[in-house]
This record gives sequence, structure tokens and C-alpha cells, in this order.
Amino acid sequence: MIVYNIRTSWFYICVIYYIRVINVMKGNALIAQGGGPTAVINQSLVGAILALRTHGDIERVYGARHGVRGIVGEQFVDLTSISKDDLELVAQMPGSALGSTRDKPDLTYCEKMFDVMKKYNIRYFFYIGGNDSADTCRIVNESARQVGYELRVIHIPKTIDNDLVGTDHCPGFGSAARFVASAFRGVNFDNASLPGVYIGVVMGRHAGFLTASSILAKQEEGDGPHLIYTPEKVFDVHRFVHDVKDVYEKYGRCIVAVSEGVVDEDGVPIATKLSKQVEHDAHGNVQLSGSGTLGDLLVDMIKNKANISRVRQDTFGYLQRSFFGCVSEVDAREAREVGAHAVKFAVSGDVDGSVAIKRVGEYRVKYELIGLGVVAAKTKKMDDAFFENDHMVSQAFVDYVKPLVGDIDFGRTYHFSIL
Amino acid sequence: MIVYNIRTSWFYICVIYYIRVINVMKGNALIAQGGGPTAVINQSLVGAILALRTHGDIERVYGARHGVRGIVGEQFVDLTSISKDDLELVAQMPGSALGSTRDKPDLTYCEKMFDVMKKYNIRYFFYIGGNDSADTCRIVNESARQVGYELRVIHIPKTIDNDLVGTDHCPGFGSAARFVASAFRGVNFDNASLPGVYIGVVMGRHAGFLTASSILAKQEEGDGPHLIYTPEKVFDVHRFVHDVKDVYEKYGRCIVAVSEGVVDEDGVPIATKLSKQVEHDAHGNVQLSGSGTLGDLLVDMIKNKANISRVRQDTFGYLQRSFFGCVSEVDAREAREVGAHAVKFAVSGDVDGSVAIKRVGEYRVKYELIGLGVVAAKTKKMDDAFFENDHMVSQAFVDYVKPLVGDIDFGRTYHFSIL
Repeated sequence: MIVYNIRTSWFYICVIYYIRVINVMKGNALIAQGGGPTAVINQSLVGAILALRTHGDIERVYGARHGVRGIVGEQFVDLTSISKDDLELVAQMPGSALGSTRDKPDLTYCEKMFDVMKKYNIRYFFYIGGNDSADTCRIVNESARQVGYELRVIHIPKTIDNDLVGTDHCPGFGSAARFVASAFRGVNFDNASLPGVYIGVVMGRHAGFLTASSILAKQEEGDGPHLIYTPEKVFDVHRFVHDVKDVYEKYGRCIVAVSEGVVDEDGVPIATKLSKQVEHDAHGNVQLSGSGTLGDLLVDMIKNKANISRVRQDTFGYLQRSFFGCVSEVDAREAREVGAHAVKFAVSGDVDGSVAIKRVGEYRVKYELIGLGVVAAKTKKMDDAFFENDHMVSQAFVDYVKPLVGDIDFGRTYHFSIL
Repeated sequence: MIVYNIRTSWFYICVIYYIRVINVMKGNALIAQGGGPTAVINQSLVGAILALRTHGDIERVYGARHGVRGIVGEQFVDLTSISKDDLELVAQMPGSALGSTRDKPDLTYCEKMFDVMKKYNIRYFFYIGGNDSADTCRIVNESARQVGYELRVIHIPKTIDNDLVGTDHCPGFGSAARFVASAFRGVNFDNASLPGVYIGVVMGRHAGFLTASSILAKQEEGDGPHLIYTPEKVFDVHRFVHDVKDVYEKYGRCIVAVSEGVVDEDGVPIATKLSKQVEHDAHGNVQLSGSGTLGDLLVDMIKNKANISRVRQDTFGYLQRSFFGCVSEVDAREAREVGAHAVKFAVSGDVDGSVAIKRVGEYRVKYELIGLGVVAAKTKKMDDAFFENDHMVSQAFVDYVKPLVGDIDFGRTYHFSIL
């Protein structure tokens, strides 16, 4: 009996040891950030760092400056012993604290990365970014297999565009949506004070989630935004002028939210149709932000074709992703969790993948790991159910987005109809 | 002895009664808002309403919708018995809760106003606005004397531009400056993540106070904004390109804050130099906001002449005066006080004027009444002492602006240099 027990114990010890060797690979971890920053991208960074530091088998935690570029260039920062207090400050900062990049690696680029990684005995690689960064993860992962470099690659999602496939929503989106909703809430009051047409151009190359979030500004019938145009629907210029005229006649004013990426019936972005120079990044994306072109074009169109004199536009640009002091609490919490879960998944087995958020209740989420290929270089568009028509979103979208953004009125109802 | 005392008492009672009749003129009060809204203009509105309701001799408190236009059009709202709780909600709203106007009255317009005012027995008129609204007050006041209509006219200052003469600073400015500083604080982190040139175009037609406030974003050597251009200094296009190149060479990036109203050596706004259509309001002001022209022009200039590829611009536009949830506490408190003091001055004697803020300590203020003519249609520019050179503000400006904006870091020091 005793012999049997000892044998059984030995068997279990071996199994546990085997699982441990397989799962918790000894080595160091490397984390980096890619693509456009968000208001909460550093929450994910800190979530991952803190989780990594609790794992005895992961000796050192390194950060690479400016994404994959900093790996090739060996621009490492040792994050192993930075104080928790300092990390909590970093977590609350917008921008990518480690720096970012738009670089897209190929096999040669990856081999250079592995040379540096070997030197630091990196066996866990975490990359925080959008669909381009997920694609980078896929390339790095495949290249590592190809050259026989043992590496676990986990993509930690972020994007204000909310356009990643396989996840209910993306960290970073809720805070940007909060900025957009707060901006339109204020603009609605401003425009009611001095009536006219107001056009707010919101980020979103292929997906309209962020622009659509402007709907949260609306409290009562007559409030703006009155018209919402996203890249999911064809943007017909004549129809647009007609829509604005209609609203203006009804309310004496009109507030429009429009995505920078709205396209004509051939899929050509309205913004690039008139740009002389078109700028592309390494991932082939056309640069749409950081210019007031689309807004100015639409203003001219309304002035000339709808004969309305007071027409203004704001292009929200970089403010919506970097404004200091506009964060959704839910978004910040989830961004932190996504970072922590990336580590949990990475040490759980020989897995690579992307962390996804699954909505399981009103409002509750759980985290899961999905394949890199599901997310890489793909774009999720807004569901048909999220539209009422081609210039307005549906109640289903409001129900979807509200918990991600939180209460923008701080628990009170502010409205000029009080007076 | 007794007879003497009774006589003395009667004398004093008569004097008090006389002062009372002179000072607290029986009649109703009218309040309205003019010009561009601010984040705290409704604090002044509510400050005045609450103060007016404590005066027994002022029976009813009316608001006119859309400024002087709502007086002519008899669009009145009775504010006498709106609950304090509702008023507190209104106070926290951006935008002009009663609506605004750009109308500038003449004698005929004023006579129409007096006809309506007589009907409501208006003897106190409070107008919340900038230098154009102060001019409206002056015109209304002079017209009232001319036609013999007894009316006390008090101008309650507001403007995000901070360009009113005779006051240390203007309600509305601190909150807009807080938006600008918070925006540049975030932009600095964003731009450090993905280095390049960033140009933020800030409101300010003739005065650079708001643009200059971007300096509060700077924490450490190397932080942006690196260059600040305001309408007080000649904007030389070649010099600008040279400045940007210099900073870019030093730091690998460059953040520029520029006023929408920057002018060339002939005083011509750079923005209007290239606009096909130039729009004017009734006060003769050129419309500079609500268009991305200036920013786009400057971007093109840097791309072409400085050979820098990643160049972006944001035109802050209406967000800086209407964003919901970005208020300076000091600004909100002072805006309330300015409204309350307007009433205090109005009932103190046969006076007309504009409420001014005087800085008396570090940091304390007191309120005084100055002549309408001092403020009307005049513009205060930034003091020479507020500049270090033609592209940077001085420590004196930082000392001046800091208490008005408050701590934008919520008491902690966030900086990417932590990592």
C-alpha cells in the first residue's frame, strides 16, 4: 500500500514536472507596442509587466522601444524592477510609453530580431497593437518556427477603431468613444447656442464604430448628432447635402458625425479623391488623419449647394486618442486585464495567439485566446444590425457601446431644455 | 433732547430711504448671452440669477433667448422660480444655455429692444459676452440715455481668448486653456510614441493667450510644445520652417502650437491669405475657426520645405470651448462670482459698467466695476514680458496662467521618462 502510494506520487510528480516544463518555459519576456497609441495602451503594458513579474520562471522582463524596430536595434529597457508605484503612473498615461512603430517585419527583419532575442534569452514575446501588429505577431511567430527559434508570441489587442476581428470590442476604443461622445455632447450645446451646421470628422479608416459612438451625445429629440456617416455605407455627396438640408429645415441646425474613411460607391475614400498627395505607411494604409481636407470639402459643399451660411467643421484628429484626462473606467480596467490575461495564456501551454474579449452578460466579459490568423491584417466592420439607415445608427448599437464608454454625464442630466 | 433724537432719526430714515430709491431701482431684470460660448458661461448666468433672486426690489428675473435678438423678438424665459437644483445643472453645462447671437444693435434696434423692455418693466440689463458684447452694452446704454429710458446695463465678461481690456483675465479662458494644455500634454506623449512634426492650431484671433497656455503641457526638457506662435509676433513662413527643422534635428520630433490668427509682417492673417472665400460676422470679425486651412498649409510647408515626412496637424476648433468635462475649478468659481458681483454692483448705485477681475495675491482676486468704454470692442494682447522670443513664451506667462488652469496632472507626475 505504501509502495503503491509512493509509486503513484512519483507518477504525479513526474506528470506535474512534465506539464511544468512544457508550459512554463524558462526564459525572459519581451514586451513592445505597435501602431497608433490609445488612452489605455499603457494599462495593458502594466497589466502584462505585473503579471510577468509574479512568474518565478520568467527571470527578466524587457521592453523594446518603438516596437519591433527597437528589437532589431537592441533598444531594450529592463522592466523587472521598476516600482509598482511608477508603473501605476505609466498605466494612466496616454501614448505608448515604450514608443511605437509602423514597421512591418519580413523574414530577414525577423532573423535580426531573433539574434537580439537570443542574446537576451527571450522566450515570451508580447506585442500590444491593432490588426497590423497582430499581423506582425503572425509573421514573427511563423518566422520563429521556420528558423527553429522557440518563442511564444501573444498579441495584446488595442485600437481606438474597434475594428479587430474575433473580439467583442478592443481596449482603447471605449476611451476614444468617450472623447467623441463628450465632444459631441458639448458641441450640441454650443451649436444650439449659435445655430448652424456642424461637421465633426472622426477617426476610422474602414470601420465606423468611433464615429457611431457620437450617438451617445444625444439625449432628447432634436439633439445632435442628427446624421452619422460611416465607411460601412456608401457616402453619396448629393444625398448628404439633401440630408443636411432636411435636418436644417426641421431644427434650424444640424450636427453631423462623419468618419474620415467614408467612401463613394466605388470604395474610394472621399478624402483622398481630392488630395494631391496621398501618404501610405508600411502596412499600405492611406493616411487620412492629421489633415482637415475632408471636413473642409464637406463644409464647402453645404455652403454652396445647401445655401446655408454658418457651416463649421472640426477634425477630431489626434485629440481623440491622446487627450489627457478622458478615459472610460471600463476600458482602463479591461485593457489592464487583457495584458494580465496575455501572460496567463502564455504560461498555460505551448500557445500563440491574440487575447479576445467575449461579452457574457449585461455587462460582464471573459477573456479568451484566439488564433493570430483570425485577427492579423483583418478588419471588422459594423454589423448591419447597428444601423437604422445609411445615416443613423440603431438602438442595438447604443446598447452595444454604452457599457464600454460609461456615463458621460457624471450621473446627472444636463440639458439646455431645462431653461 | 427727545425731540432732537426723533428729528435725527427721521433725518436718517429719510436719507436711507433716499439712498434706497436711488440705488435699488424697482423693476425687473433681464439677462442674456452674446458671442461664442465658453465652458463656464452658464456659471455666470446662474451666479447672476441667484443673486438677483435675493433682491426684494427686483421682482422678476427674465432671460432673453439668443442675446439681443431675443429681446427684439420678445423671446423671454422667466427665470424667477426655476429651482436652484436645475440652475446648478445649467451652471455646469458648456454652451450658452439661453442661446447666443452675433447681432450688433444700432439705435433703431435698441429702440425696438426698449419697447419690449418697457412692456416687462426691465430696469436692469445684464449681458454676458466678450468685447463685442461689451460694445453692445455700450450702445444699449448710450441709446437708453438718448431716448430717456432708465436702465442699468452691466457687462459680465466671458471669452476663451482672454483678450478683454481692464481685467486680469476673463472667465472662460481658464477652462479653454485647460483643454489646450491637456491636449498638448497628451499629444506630447503620442508624438513621442510615433515621432514626427505635430502642429496644433488653437483659437485666438488677435491674442495668443490660449495658444500660449499649451506651455503648461511641458514638464521636462525635450517635451513639447517646442514652438509657440501667437498673433502678437510676426509669423515669418521661412523662419517657421527653419525653427521646426532646428527642433526636429535636436529632438527627432517637434510639437508646434500656433494661433489661428497668426499674421504676416503686414498684419494679414496667414489663414486668410489663401482662403478663397472670407466670411465676416456683424462685428466685422473674419471667421478663422471651423476650417482646417491654416493647419493644412503649414503641414504642406514643412513636408515640402523641411523634407520631413511625418507631419500632422489638428485644428482644435470648437472642442476647446465646448468639450463636455474639461473645466478649470478656479475658472468655474470666478465665472460664478463675476455673475454675482454684476448684480451687487448694479444695485449699489446708478452705475453701468463691466465687471473686472483684479489679481491681488498668489492666488487671490477681487472684483471691480470698470467703464463699458474701457472694454467695448477693444482687444488686449499678450504683454511683451510674456514672451521669451518670437516662438516661445516666458516664465512670467507660466506664472500668470498656471493658477487659472489648475493642475492638469491631477496631483501626480506622469511622464514617459519613467520607463
